[in-house]
Amino acid sequence: MNTVKKYDVFEVSVSGPSEGNPFKDQWICGTLKNRQETIKTDGFYDGDGVYKVRFMPSFEGEYSYTVESSFGEKLEGAVAVGPADPENHGPVRVANNYHFAYDDGTPHYSIGTTCYVWNLMNDDIIEKTFAELEKGYFNKIRFCIFPKHYCHNFGEPRSYPYVGTPCDASWLNVDNFFEHRGVLPGNDWDFETFNPEHFRHIENCIERLGKLGIEADIILFHPYDRWGFSCMSHEQDLYYLKYVIARYAAYHNVWWSLANEFDLIPSKSIRDWEGIADFIVKNDPYTHLRSIHNCIYVYDHSRPWITHVSYQQQGPGRSVESGAELRTRYKKPVVFDEIQYEGNITENFGNISGEELTRRFWEAAIRGCYAGHGECFEDPDDIIWWSHGGELKGTSPERIRFLLQILKETPGLGLMPLTGPFPRSVCVPEQPFDEEKAYYLYYYGQNRPNYMVYRMDPDKTYEAEVIDTWEMTVTKAGTFSGTFRIDLPGKEYMAVRLRRIS
Amino acid sequence: MNTVKKYDVFEVSVSGPSEGNPFKDQWICGTLKNRQETIKTDGFYDGDGVYKVRFMPSFEGEYSYTVESSFGEKLEGAVAVGPADPENHGPVRVANNYHFAYDDGTPHYSIGTTCYVWNLMNDDIIEKTFAELEKGYFNKIRFCIFPKHYCHNFGEPRSYPYVGTPCDASWLNVDNFFEHRGVLPGNDWDFETFNPEHFRHIENCIERLGKLGIEADIILFHPYDRWGFSCMSHEQDLYYLKYVIARYAAYHNVWWSLANEFDLIPSKSIRDWEGIADFIVKNDPYTHLRSIHNCIYVYDHSRPWITHVSYQQQGPGRSVESGAELRTRYKKPVVFDEIQYEGNITENFGNISGEELTRRFWEAAIRGCYAGHGECFEDPDDIIWWSHGGELKGTSPERIRFLLQILKETPGLGLMPLTGPFPRSVCVPEQPFDEEKAYYLYYYGQNRPNYMVYRMDPDKTYEAEVIDTWEMTVTKAGTFSGTFRIDLPGKEYMAVRLRRIS
Repeated sequence: MNTVKKYDVFEVSVSGPSEGNPFKDQWICGTLKNRQETIKTDGFYDGDGVYKVRFMPSFEGEYSYTVESSFGEKLEGAVAVGPADPENHGPVRVANNYHFAYDDGTPHYSIGTTCYVWNLMNDDIIEKTFAELEKGYFNKIRFCIFPKHYCHNFGEPRSYPYVGTPCDASWLNVDNFFEHRGVLPGNDWDFETFNPEHFRHIENCIERLGKLGIEADIILFHPYDRWGFSCMSHEQDLYYLKYVIARYAAYHNVWWSLANEFDLIPSKSIRDWEGIADFIVKNDPYTHLRSIHNCIYVYDHSRPWITHVSYQQQGPGRSVESGAELRTRYKKPVVFDEIQYEGNITENFGNISGEELTRRFWEAAIRGCYAGHGECFEDPDDIIWWSHGGELKGTSPERIRFLLQILKETPGLGLMPLTGPFPRSVCVPEQPFDEEKAYYLYYYGQNRPNYMVYRMDPDKTYEAEVIDTWEMTVTKAGTFSGTFRIDLPGKEYMAVRLRRIS
Repeated sequence: MNTVKKYDVFEVSVSGPSEGNPFKDQWICGTLKNRQETIKTDGFYDGDGVYKVRFMPSFEGEYSYTVESSFGEKLEGAVAVGPADPENHGPVRVANNYHFAYDDGTPHYSIGTTCYVWNLMNDDIIEKTFAELEKGYFNKIRFCIFPKHYCHNFGEPRSYPYVGTPCDASWLNVDNFFEHRGVLPGNDWDFETFNPEHFRHIENCIERLGKLGIEADIILFHPYDRWGFSCMSHEQDLYYLKYVIARYAAYHNVWWSLANEFDLIPSKSIRDWEGIADFIVKNDPYTHLRSIHNCIYVYDHSRPWITHVSYQQQGPGRSVESGAELRTRYKKPVVFDEIQYEGNITENFGNISGEELTRRFWEAAIRGCYAGHGECFEDPDDIIWWSHGGELKGTSPERIRFLLQILKETPGLGLMPLTGPFPRSVCVPEQPFDEEKAYYLYYYGQNRPNYMVYRMDPDKTYEAEVIDTWEMTVTKAGTFSGTFRIDLPGKEYMAVRLRRIS
């Protein structure tokens, strides 16, 4: 019998016709079921007369499957699903309203990074990116299926999603690229004929990310386009989505980001986005996480198909300091996926310090929210992490990893801010609060108190630790009850953790 | 004939009865007029049988005056008003809607500091404060008439505004002071009998500030009180205001701050504040600037008696980064009088770095707003600038003075932000914009661009300067037209100034 591990991809491969346009002319679909779940999914044409149907079983035990197609007999079979790899906890879900957990219940504290088209670089750069990702700085990476046209991004991708010819890009530069986007003269694409190699390469990246414990936050559409991929018809969009879902949905670590900066894509209306969302909801058998990321204008994140808020920081009231308000407004997890990036380039989005980026991560965390990293240091070859991946140069990644470690040591699925008329700098585990596991995390950010007084329960005992979030040290300060004072070094970026021990 | 300089105090002193309660039983008032203005004002009892009426003439030339009282003949006389001292430009007024100018038209770029009761310290500390103020860091200082009860402020003031006995304060401390405010047991004050020495001392301070070119932003009421001065009846409040106005309004450098943190004074309602404002409007002959400062809840700054917004920074959407929105909302000058203070004390309001405080000043300035300084370094004698004055220890004052110098070099009365959907970092002189004096001030704050490209008019020539707001250097970068690039050091707190030269 076939065997597969829980949360891995079980793939059924079938030979079929290669004449005509198999993407359009043929279809294949399948069902995998046991007594606990039934997964119905489309398959896809992978080129060279090969058709595939992919499933991700979520339970152990024996499953049966059937595969049907436009070109052959119905296939039936069985597969024994064994225990998941110890490192594979299944897809990430929303948990306890404002947080995330893997399908097996393991908490997921989201610490993302953005490398828009790292996956479309050459092998050398991709391997450098993986070498950085292996260091465990991040557990999510945002990237695109379509290539990117933007400052520092005028080169051609390693492959295209469709068969065809790209436009001449030699006349495009930092001064005119923004006006000249979308459909440019010279593009000639067959939007009905995919390039399987493009998608196969990306799914190899997704799979490798999965083995590293990194979520693939896949950006389905984006405005930084000179090939017309942002300007296809709605039918072409859905045709593309059907192919993407059939290929990628069975990977446990997939998240769907409908768009990066949806509001900068003039060719799509809210009705289009809602149609795209509806299609994903109906066709993704695994209900992977779904979001839509803004530039200026914020999507209505209360829409039921949106699982979590994917936010860009822009000006007053739009910064991580507004995280508590966003939680209240949307009643969903809040992920600040873009909070400006560490670096030194001329563009405003990419030149804050490692200290400031780290601070913003902590300010998000202390409000029960999550943040995303990016890096934009000038480079002789113009290889910039934010777009291309490559080698990290900044000071924030190891601090961000340190924060992730602190978050992993919280007793629950995530944190919630203690709010009030004064901005507060303390959070506790999300409600329902378990008094036995009382835990308080204070973060002082730009404030530099030389000591702090804590007013705790006199009948309980707390262990206090002073955390230097920049130096990445945790120093035991003693055990205390009632009202007590902790001395602090009068410098920025300090935190204090109190944990009840009796 | 009597002589006085324009904008100085012309005082008529009269002997009268000292028996009974002259403050309550007697009255004195006067009129000063020439063909350009008529000033009608109350006088006041200064103790020891001396009554005074004070006037501040705003024009040169011969004035006549009359003084009438409850106890004597009508006095008549004349005074020749000569040119103002070169350093005395008269009271500060709102100018060009969002800005300030002195009565003689000289621009006033507000750069304040807060020392709540520096004036109620001993002579030694007061002289130290003046020594700092003489360095020209600030052109406004906020302080109280009533003493202050707060952490680091449990001592007694040098004098009290009323005759009477203060409560015992020995049982009050950092843990209980906030709950025990207002009327405390043991206070015994005669709210109908002022202590003239208290007020005389403060007016000496006001006068010395005036000679230093520093505005006295007088806080009339505040919540940090253990003597009951925040809990008087409305009639007692007006009785006090009448005395304050009679004594102080003739000083050119007076601003009226109705309250510090009005919203923390439970004994006064909005109706009370409006009554207080109405009284000041009707009784101050010089229409000095009027504001009311918040802690959490913001007063309706659109009220017509409020000349400018006096704001406290509190959390998201309440920071200096929201300055442009506050201008739009209130259509008045916006002064961020409290944006947290440089220091290292445990309290959150008083422990940011000099870098961060300076950055907030610039962020306010670039949005066409103004900010206020304060300092809270731990001190062996608990003498902290924010409350007591004394010696400055921080790094921000000289940077703030540097900003003031930059502001003095702007061509108009003040700056306005160039706003749009993206947060911008550039401002120009307030409208109406004089193309001949084209001026652009860019501030990059926490951003660290390694260069910036400017797209200016190709038919005009601009002189470019790179300003390091922390190192306080202005470096000429050349003259340019059209689109050009300025190299920057890729560090925080940089600014660029472009000035049209042809």
